[in-house]
Amino acid sequence: MALTPYQQLEQEFRRLHAFRGAASVLRWDAAVMMPRGSADVRGEQLAVLESECHALLTSPKVSRLIDRAQANEAQLEDWQLANLREMRRERDHAIATPLSLITRLAKATSLAEVRWLEAKQQDSFALFAPHLEEVVALTRDKAAVLSQALGLSPYDSLIDGFSPGFLSEHIDQLFRVMGRRLPNLIREAIELQATRPALPIGGKVGISKQRTLAVEVLRKIGFPFDRGRLDESDHPSTEGVAGDVRITTRFDLNEPFTGLMGVLHEAGQAMYDLGLPEAWRDQPVGRDRGMALEESQSLLLEMIIARSRPFLTWLRPLLEKHYGVSGPEWEIENLYHTLIRVRRGAIRVDADELTYPVHIMVRFELEQKILDGSLPVRDLPEAWKVGLDKRLGLRPASDAEGCLQDVHWAIGSFGYFPSYVLGSLIAAQFYESLRNDIEGLDAEIAAGRFGSLFDWLRQNVHRQGARTSSQELIRNATGKELSATPWLRYAEAKYLEERP
Amino acid sequence: MALTPYQQLEQEFRRLHAFRGAASVLRWDAAVMMPRGSADVRGEQLAVLESECHALLTSPKVSRLIDRAQANEAQLEDWQLANLREMRRERDHAIATPLSLITRLAKATSLAEVRWLEAKQQDSFALFAPHLEEVVALTRDKAAVLSQALGLSPYDSLIDGFSPGFLSEHIDQLFRVMGRRLPNLIREAIELQATRPALPIGGKVGISKQRTLAVEVLRKIGFPFDRGRLDESDHPSTEGVAGDVRITTRFDLNEPFTGLMGVLHEAGQAMYDLGLPEAWRDQPVGRDRGMALEESQSLLLEMIIARSRPFLTWLRPLLEKHYGVSGPEWEIENLYHTLIRVRRGAIRVDADELTYPVHIMVRFELEQKILDGSLPVRDLPEAWKVGLDKRLGLRPASDAEGCLQDVHWAIGSFGYFPSYVLGSLIAAQFYESLRNDIEGLDAEIAAGRFGSLFDWLRQNVHRQGARTSSQELIRNATGKELSATPWLRYAEAKYLEERP
Repeated sequence: MALTPYQQLEQEFRRLHAFRGAASVLRWDAAVMMPRGSADVRGEQLAVLESECHALLTSPKVSRLIDRAQANEAQLEDWQLANLREMRRERDHAIATPLSLITRLAKATSLAEVRWLEAKQQDSFALFAPHLEEVVALTRDKAAVLSQALGLSPYDSLIDGFSPGFLSEHIDQLFRVMGRRLPNLIREAIELQATRPALPIGGKVGISKQRTLAVEVLRKIGFPFDRGRLDESDHPSTEGVAGDVRITTRFDLNEPFTGLMGVLHEAGQAMYDLGLPEAWRDQPVGRDRGMALEESQSLLLEMIIARSRPFLTWLRPLLEKHYGVSGPEWEIENLYHTLIRVRRGAIRVDADELTYPVHIMVRFELEQKILDGSLPVRDLPEAWKVGLDKRLGLRPASDAEGCLQDVHWAIGSFGYFPSYVLGSLIAAQFYESLRNDIEGLDAEIAAGRFGSLFDWLRQNVHRQGARTSSQELIRNATGKELSATPWLRYAEAKYLEERP
Repeated sequence: MALTPYQQLEQEFRRLHAFRGAASVLRWDAAVMMPRGSADVRGEQLAVLESECHALLTSPKVSRLIDRAQANEAQLEDWQLANLREMRRERDHAIATPLSLITRLAKATSLAEVRWLEAKQQDSFALFAPHLEEVVALTRDKAAVLSQALGLSPYDSLIDGFSPGFLSEHIDQLFRVMGRRLPNLIREAIELQATRPALPIGGKVGISKQRTLAVEVLRKIGFPFDRGRLDESDHPSTEGVAGDVRITTRFDLNEPFTGLMGVLHEAGQAMYDLGLPEAWRDQPVGRDRGMALEESQSLLLEMIIARSRPFLTWLRPLLEKHYGVSGPEWEIENLYHTLIRVRRGAIRVDADELTYPVHIMVRFELEQKILDGSLPVRDLPEAWKVGLDKRLGLRPASDAEGCLQDVHWAIGSFGYFPSYVLGSLIAAQFYESLRNDIEGLDAEIAAGRFGSLFDWLRQNVHRQGARTSSQELIRNATGKELSATPWLRYAEAKYLEERP
């Protein structure tokens, strides 16, 4: 029996899924296993797989099949329709970035990344500026074509590549609401925390002890080690596909919690991947709903669940067991106050839950101005310092600690930064619903029972895959449109609480 | 400037090389790193990569380009001509096995492999027989089409897929020469060895000690750990590509030499891969010259170089250092006699250098009869027992130790077995030339200097890639056609030597 156009599309996208899965394992391997000298060989393999994916998505055959499948939409069911919509979305993105542009972007960004690192190490923006200009020019070209294809503004079409369905206008509005409250909230939290200083948690904890604890925590939250791995790499990451999910973290002898919190962050995304709808796992509709949703799962687990008294109540005996530690600084209350400490600082990746959004707001504002040309690249260093000073009352001492700190723009990832804060907001909104829907959630977590938590997430988030828009997913899960209110409520309760 | 047809072909085969390299790393990962439950996901990824390679080779575009490049052969240089010839060879093999046949073979062999394992475990050939019949039928179809395309006999066309250029008629003649001398040689060697029994080498050696020794040995022979790895898996293997070569072995607590000899075997192939012509590494002419040549590199290092007094003279202090062993059983002479012990046995993989060829001769004879239909599959078990008895004076006690011991036929690898003996013969012929060309080779090896050895191999074998035929490569390296004489000379000298 001949396959329908839709069924043929499923076959094509099954191939795409296999290519992407292979590429993901190869990236994991490059970070964790690959001999240092093999980067050139690996680069060629990944480039070929990527261009193969692009060729598949932009082939006349796939576009023809999409047209024919759309003409027969009446015969498709709900999930199939959503799958067809996602196929179209991927095709549109691919067609808007022709291979010649991809090649030029790949060359420009790989050079820019090298120069960026040198510039950061030497604290010399001038070294980086011409390369950033080149990347910006190419990104503008890409955004212009994408904008036409998707019917979005150029910047929104870039955002759509990371977090589908989020518009800068809405993000702007969310950020304004947060921005009105945030400066005072940060100040009040710091003042309050100053009244109850935490005892310093010192001493080295061996890497193998930290690893053993992390494995036990992963097991307890339900991470399946027969379909996943935990390894170490320079930068924490989650790679692989549902069915073979690979978390990496970096353990630090002098930081007993950095590695574990990295694991929990990645585990949020890993559990998302593992919970995606099994029947659709090799199709676009079976993928996660983009960066903002992924980040929401990571932040919910790392920031909201793990940095809480119930979680630390459960964790404390495990710390004693694996780290062999005790004493007042390891008491729950002291751990809690240490892990939620608020500090103003210049570096995004070192920021806490309250100051992190401020760093993103600065970048969100600047990257739009760079793209629309209202901020020349050469003026970026000063604009950065002014922006952070205005929002956080802090002027970075150098460009290395200012606009050179992140790799994102060097590799052309404009439109990526907002995902981090969207993730926080979504996480807080989910958490509010979670607490309403699950009676005794705190007690369960304090007892090391994560079943109800992940059941809720699987049902409301993970198993939805990419069936609905991000907005609809959030609305279905929480009964409300996404807003900053749940996050502000959560943050105020957590950071301004009276002594319990 | 427009690319010539030949240059376009190079581009296509560069993609092929990247696909194959990616697939090889994924196979390595499956054996060494992959979580147990992820085999289905990995199977899909590998199947897609394989079918992509097949689609590339069989595309009308590639065939058109080959025709056009051949029409302009006059403009090509020596290596380019050889590259074009190898491209054509790969294309011919791929076209002769259409995707429908590959798919049927893949299904039949993957089921047959499962049933084979059950049959072996339960010692029940009946469980396996129908599946082997199915595989044989499909292999016959494949051989028939290949035979047409390559102008070879059906069986020779299968051999050509593993060891290009070797014909069964020539193999038959080599085997007859060996077969005339081998029964007596084995008997005489066993009788002689009985007059000087070796002290048993007992005691457990920790895996980490064995690993450390293996790494030091690899370093000393020149294995580059910045472009390669050593890991552990159930079956020793060499995967990856030149530039990222990955050896695996299996260490056994009770066998102080099994793991190390496995490493040396694989290292022979790995050094071959690493020495392939750099300028052609992503082209067919830059690949190794097939299984027989690969096996020659493995056997030369493991059997001829490592199981020798000079090598053991160098190794002995390392054993003392890493294993912490001493005593008369660890003296060079005792190690040597232990490592070259000849024993008649039913199992191929446990066989020594002298009895190994006999096992292959039995298989070589039987697989031809199975394929041409003169031996029905149901009569295989008895024919196997009779064959081994006739050639080795030993009747396997069961089918599990008889015709069920190897996986090769279950996975459709007919025509593979002869490569093992061809490898031995080539290794011995290389060794004879090596000893003529390099003065003081024994002394160098006894001093742990492997430079001259590998310089010779690189120049005469590795750097030749697939530029010439196997026969021409051997002729150029040794000044002679391949024959069994050097191997017989080597074996007689080694196994019938008077007490030194």
